[in-house]
Amino acid sequence: MKGSDLLGDVFTDDCPGREIVEHITSRWAPLIVAALRGGSLRFFELRDKLDGISEKVLSQKLRILVRDGLIERTVEPSVPPKVSYELTKLGHGLSEPLQQLVDWILAHGEEVVAAQEEHDKAS
Amino acid sequence: MKGSDLLGDVFTDDCPGREIVEHITSRWAPLIVAALRGGSLRFFELRDKLDGISEKVLSQKLRILVRDGLIERTVEPSVPPKVSYELTKLGHGLSEPLQQLVDWILAHGEEVVAAQEEHDKAS
Repeated sequence: MKGSDLLGDVFTDDCPGREIVEHITSRWAPLIVAALRGGSLRFFELRDKLDGISEKVLSQKLRILVRDGLIERTVEPSVPPKVSYELTKLGHGLSEPLQQLVDWILAHGEEVVAAQEEHDKAS
Repeated sequence: MKGSDLLGDVFTDDCPGREIVEHITSRWAPLIVAALRGGSLRFFELRDKLDGISEKVLSQKLRILVRDGLIERTVEPSVPPKVSYELTKLGHGLSEPLQQLVDWILAHGEEVVAAQEEHDKAS
């Protein structure tokens, strides 16, 4: 699979690139990646940082991102074992364009909120 | 609401910034924005371009993005009326960081697929 094939097919149903788009843009995934930009976190630290996520959903999302090679799971053989998560090199690379998206929202979030209010007034 | 407040609170449940993150990264939304980068499209052209989307889901997603001020809906008063969608200036601005995300996937998609295969072999 060449990069250019991924591009050409990103709108078709069976494109692996689209599966990746969906993993990294699915609910919570960008926030998980953003939360780990600062360094490794334990499962419960991550849960506390992501206000409103359930442990079940956080586990599922982490499993997908670990399988994608974006996050590494480390188990320290202590009693009880300490499980922590950190971005891989690949995950750090992804976090750059995700950060640009967050930066855009920082710069233009107010315009979106204003558009929503305008829209709701008109309808 | 200042930009910096959005940043500080992006992990908390009631942050408007997080709602925006969820709109623009929700399933289909990045693909809809990417599809409109080339210019205005009719509803059915958009549906055909986004392989696998239902008309109901496409309508819902478009309504959210129109309300966010990212997409403009135009009705031409012909018989039957022609409905088309295009990115607003704000939507074009958003499409830049989204394109960076697509570019990252083009450059690194194979590494993600390789990580998935490695992971599935090991487990």
